[in-house]
Amino acid sequence: MERRVLLTGFDPFGGERINPALEAVRKLEGRILEDIGVRVVAQELPTVFGKSIEVLAQAIEREQPEVVICVGQAGGRTHITPERVAINVNDARIPDNEGQQPVDEPVVEGGPAAYFSTLPIKAIVQAMRDAGIPAMVSNTAGTFVCNHVFYGLMHLLHTRSAGVRGGFIHIPYLPEQVADRPEPSMALETIVRGIEIAIRVSATADADVRVTGGTEC
Amino acid sequence: MERRVLLTGFDPFGGERINPALEAVRKLEGRILEDIGVRVVAQELPTVFGKSIEVLAQAIEREQPEVVICVGQAGGRTHITPERVAINVNDARIPDNEGQQPVDEPVVEGGPAAYFSTLPIKAIVQAMRDAGIPAMVSNTAGTFVCNHVFYGLMHLLHTRSAGVRGGFIHIPYLPEQVADRPEPSMALETIVRGIEIAIRVSATADADVRVTGGTEC
Amino acid sequence: MERRVLLTGFDPFGGERINPALEAVRKLEGRILEDIGVRVVAQELPTVFGKSIEVLAQAIEREQPEVVICVGQAGGRTHITPERVAINVNDARIPDNEGQQPVDEPVVEGGPAAYFSTLPIKAIVQAMRDAGIPAMVSNTAGTFVCNHVFYGLMHLLHTRSAGVRGGFIHIPYLPEQVADRPEPSMALETIVRGIEIAIRVSATADADVRVTGGTEC
Amino acid sequence: MERRVLLTGFDPFGGERINPALEAVRKLEGRILEDIGVRVVAQELPTVFGKSIEVLAQAIEREQPEVVICVGQAGGRTHITPERVAINVNDARIPDNEGQQPVDEPVVEGGPAAYFSTLPIKAIVQAMRDAGIPAMVSNTAGTFVCNHVFYGLMHLLHTRSAGVRGGFIHIPYLPEQVADRPEPSMALETIVRGIEIAIRVSATADADVRVTGGTEC
Repeated sequence: MERRVLLTGFDPFGGERINPALEAVRKLEGRILEDIGVRVVAQELPTVFGKSIEVLAQAIEREQPEVVICVGQAGGRTHITPERVAINVNDARIPDNEGQQPVDEPVVEGGPAAYFSTLPIKAIVQAMRDAGIPAMVSNTAGTFVCNHVFYGLMHLLHTRSAGVRGGFIHIPYLPEQVADRPEPSMALETIVRGIEIAIRVSATADADVRVTGGTEC
Repeated sequence: MERRVLLTGFDPFGGERINPALEAVRKLEGRILEDIGVRVVAQELPTVFGKSIEVLAQAIEREQPEVVICVGQAGGRTHITPERVAINVNDARIPDNEGQQPVDEPVVEGGPAAYFSTLPIKAIVQAMRDAGIPAMVSNTAGTFVCNHVFYGLMHLLHTRSAGVRGGFIHIPYLPEQVADRPEPSMALETIVRGIEIAIRVSATADADVRVTGGTEC
Repeated sequence: MERRVLLTGFDPFGGERINPALEAVRKLEGRILEDIGVRVVAQELPTVFGKSIEVLAQAIEREQPEVVICVGQAGGRTHITPERVAINVNDARIPDNEGQQPVDEPVVEGGPAAYFSTLPIKAIVQAMRDAGIPAMVSNTAGTFVCNHVFYGLMHLLHTRSAGVRGGFIHIPYLPEQVADRPEPSMALETIVRGIEIAIRVSATADADVRVTGGTEC
Repeated sequence: MERRVLLTGFDPFGGERINPALEAVRKLEGRILEDIGVRVVAQELPTVFGKSIEVLAQAIEREQPEVVICVGQAGGRTHITPERVAINVNDARIPDNEGQQPVDEPVVEGGPAAYFSTLPIKAIVQAMRDAGIPAMVSNTAGTFVCNHVFYGLMHLLHTRSAGVRGGFIHIPYLPEQVADRPEPSMALETIVRGIEIAIRVSATADADVRVTGGTEC
């Protein structure tokens, strides 16, 4: 029996013409990991407060996945960074793709202050590193649409889909985005290999491993 | 009638011989801000999981402050950074000052995933900037003893001291800590001025201002 | 008639087990660029003051190249960085691979303070960027064996091989070198494509282009 | 007999309203270091290719100093950085204060590729560090007006004023310049103390110390 993993990526924002998350997710759309009986389903999300969560909810309803991994661009980061925690706040430094710029509003009115990822983030980081892929746990997903979708996802899973694992992974810029700017990047091929590892570990690990992914600040 | 503001700073950790937070807090110990009727009380905290919160709880019990501001060193940061959110996890990359190194354990068993600061962090940042002091909101206090105390503080205030404002502010290294290492720093005098501004704004602002302190990631 | 381009890469140093420069250069060894009549010859250099220049001089003598491009690892950089200038100083923060650690000694006793690269570095950067590869001019090659070989090369070409173009290109870490450290990297495939572009431009450009590659500091 | 040390600072450029170099230099104008018989003379330089060197030459002619230290802002640096080498190139990423933007032109037509500082830069760094002031040697002064003046100074001293020590020191932004931007800074008081140390060491050291100030790249 086929198990589904739902992967999402955002459309470009912040003046960029491409979004590495969308590029990576498209490469994995439809991929079948036969050895673990998994089929990857990809979904594009608009970089828009509100709508992004609606589209995500519909995709979850339609696909009934066992695992949901949302992927987003983290400009300036050097590593693939599975996120630990989503917080209940929208605080937009720049407008979203429909011009909304909420400040200090909750993602879900009355929701808890935060949700932790239910992906095995330490095991994912460990497996990526074993494969030579730069990875580390992140303790903040920011306060823009990435965190918004991450919080929305965890709230959905918590309230409606107990047992479905979910979380968010931030990825660096692609090389072509920063060819003439002093920012770090990662090749699409490396990112795609990393995301596939995240899928495999998320779909098969019984529990997370107990290794540190902490920081002093 | 005198109102008290409790300020805390940690003893040195991670191989450092001084902790800028403790140095700054000592400079402000006993200071009286006559115009707003505030007296500053300083308390040293051990950089130790558990004990740090116990000492903090005793100081709150003893001093009955209106505002509590915990201050900690954020090595590598360039700005004074009021923290937005404390998360319910201890994940130590390095041992604390008694050799403890918890991984993925809760600060408070059964506590909520996170607490938001109740300090007016946006107003604090704005006032520091108006005074020419580098400041920005931070969306992660890490997962070491700083976050631990921050979470412990907010849990204490939430469960026992409704109406007392509290939060955490991270500060950069002092110049003498990084004289021969490529890390940013801030003069003690600048830090002290910044913390005093945080005290004033926290003790007097009716509500926070609505300006962004967000990041995309 | 075949024209030769000599490419050099160093063996690993500073505790690393691989050197991205050597990996990249090996991938290009023997490559024939038919359209421009160029054959690539690769040479490994020891990361050793003195010996590195001797081995380079022998390779130039043996291969009689039209262009010489020395490649080295620049840990911490995000971009491929053609170097502008070599300076007449050895100042080693760490020992070389034979334990030598010269401080403030000249590369060539009595030599000029510096040599400028004779590669068309601006045109190289422009062509890399047009291909989506992160690139920028660097104004310092450091003071270790990379700068040493760069200076040695330019001195050799200046004194014995007028008309042969030469220079130095620094490249980032490979992803597997920094999988668990917070440092930027670049995929080997991207680096190899970049170096091939540098070879093509160096072998064919009449003169450099007049675009800025400057910095304020 | 009084010995003079000439100190220069630039007027603001690049959209800044102040220049920390000028602020620091003004604080030291007229200072008399009695114990070593030194009087500090300060001179403002325009951030303009050509004119800056003319004004500098006039000040040297007028003051007949024993030591000349030019100071400039290095936005983004965390430490005070005595420069090792000036290179014979103007390559402006941004226009100077009169709109000039030379690309790959020599500072001095026919001049040597570079000049080394004749200040005891290692001893200066060591003395600053001993005083708790963040300092390190820099191996590039960039390619804008700072490097231009540095090269111009060394060329002047080399051709006309044998025996006069000279060099360039870059300093970080002031805190108020970066209050709302994620850039490092240094307090004016710290910078002034650092520059005074540089004056003392430059005016009294017999020779530089032999300690590394090198980098791999």
